[in-house]
Amino acid sequence: MEKTNNDIVIIGAGNVATHLAQKLFSEGCCIRQIFSRTENAAHTLAEKVNAVPITDLRRTDKAADLYIIAVKDDAIASVLPYLACVRGLVVHTSGSAGIEVFENCRINNYGVLYPMQTFSKKRAIDFHEVPFFIEACDEENLHAVSALAHIFSDHVTVTTSEQRRKIHLGAVFACNFTNHMYALTEQILKEAGVPFEIMRPLINETVQKTKEMSPVEAQTGPAVRYDKTVMNKHLRLIEDIRTKEIYIKISESIHAFAEKREKETNE
Amino acid sequence: MEKTNNDIVIIGAGNVATHLAQKLFSEGCCIRQIFSRTENAAHTLAEKVNAVPITDLRRTDKAADLYIIAVKDDAIASVLPYLACVRGLVVHTSGSAGIEVFENCRINNYGVLYPMQTFSKKRAIDFHEVPFFIEACDEENLHAVSALAHIFSDHVTVTTSEQRRKIHLGAVFACNFTNHMYALTEQILKEAGVPFEIMRPLINETVQKTKEMSPVEAQTGPAVRYDKTVMNKHLRLIEDIRTKEIYIKISESIHAFAEKREKETNE
Repeated sequence: MEKTNNDIVIIGAGNVATHLAQKLFSEGCCIRQIFSRTENAAHTLAEKVNAVPITDLRRTDKAADLYIIAVKDDAIASVLPYLACVRGLVVHTSGSAGIEVFENCRINNYGVLYPMQTFSKKRAIDFHEVPFFIEACDEENLHAVSALAHIFSDHVTVTTSEQRRKIHLGAVFACNFTNHMYALTEQILKEAGVPFEIMRPLINETVQKTKEMSPVEAQTGPAVRYDKTVMNKHLRLIEDIRTKEIYIKISESIHAFAEKREKETNE
Repeated sequence: MEKTNNDIVIIGAGNVATHLAQKLFSEGCCIRQIFSRTENAAHTLAEKVNAVPITDLRRTDKAADLYIIAVKDDAIASVLPYLACVRGLVVHTSGSAGIEVFENCRINNYGVLYPMQTFSKKRAIDFHEVPFFIEACDEENLHAVSALAHIFSDHVTVTTSEQRRKIHLGAVFACNFTNHMYALTEQILKEAGVPFEIMRPLINETVQKTKEMSPVEAQTGPAVRYDKTVMNKHLRLIEDIRTKEIYIKISESIHAFAEKREKETNE
């Protein structure tokens, strides 16, 4: 990393901001300021990375080399006026916000640094394997964003905002929605007086199978053939209406995918 | 295993039947017959385990020590009349069919042997880790079913039919529905021109996190705080109506779980 590793301002103190700041700090970068609207959050993270906590964006150091915006998509636009005319590189870390958010903000050097991972403050991340999707306003800044991304990982890919948005959507299904299936499983097993851990071999095998075959090919269970006898038994066991609807919608979708695959295989 | 390992008849030639038969065969058990309505399926499996393929249940050997019924739930009841008055142990392998299916069938020794795993013919299974849930008509037969289950695995648990049905429902969420999230991810990524494999670190981390915290605690992403800006961007990217509905229903459920957790944490 060249010019970007001298002085860094992190805007945000959530899960992504915390992990990025800690990694940069551990790599010897100098984190100048941590901004959060919440004083406590700013202090907690600032303390960890030897930075100054700020809760007022007007106090942002205008002479930093790099500004990393890791706030909710909604909040990005409201941060940018405070960075007008800075000479440093400004990046946001969102999967869904386009690069066009920076336009007409009098910011000259900008880009996107999206690390595709599920970050929880409690759990350490091995950044080495995390894919980073990057974008920038021009070649020179792309070079800088790429150098920044490579501090974290060797898996750095340049994408358009449109591609990145689809990748982020994919990540929501592969991570958040998958994890929610685990949450629903945990709730169902609780009713049966069985610990979630008994699912471990099944969960592992489900993941392992996708290394050998496509998920559609790997699919098993009652929804593939739309086995109404089993499905109705299951639906009677589910009390929560929303969970019932999820069961029905996903089963219909599994069946549609299986039928499509069978048709294609027979062609 | 005592009396049950001499002569075995397997009714069914699907994924579960195939894996159970092959494992028993490899453990030195004698598989007498393989029944399937489909001649080809009966032949294929029978050849692998040195058995006689049959397509007519009237030809079932009445002198076997063990009958394993691994057919669709719907079909179990239609098989049982052909096993009336056999002296051997009769088990079905269903997660959802109750033990009461055997009642009034003039079968004296019966039970349930439910291996909780996702079986595909193409992929070998390490049975050692697979949890087996068992049940039987009386103590003596439970002993026999347990001995049979222990041929496959050390993880053998006695449950009621009601508990087993809930465990099976949990398995549908943890395996089939999770796998379908991967299938939907694959489809979304295809549209972005990105291979499914880039999701591997995210998928692994999602699984790993549940070893340290509950799935509800591990949850991240736009649905937790019901971030409508991001969610609307995502919904605009999804063309398939069913996938859109799945996105909405799961997001609502994630948000409801997150709110409930926050409330409980603050109490």
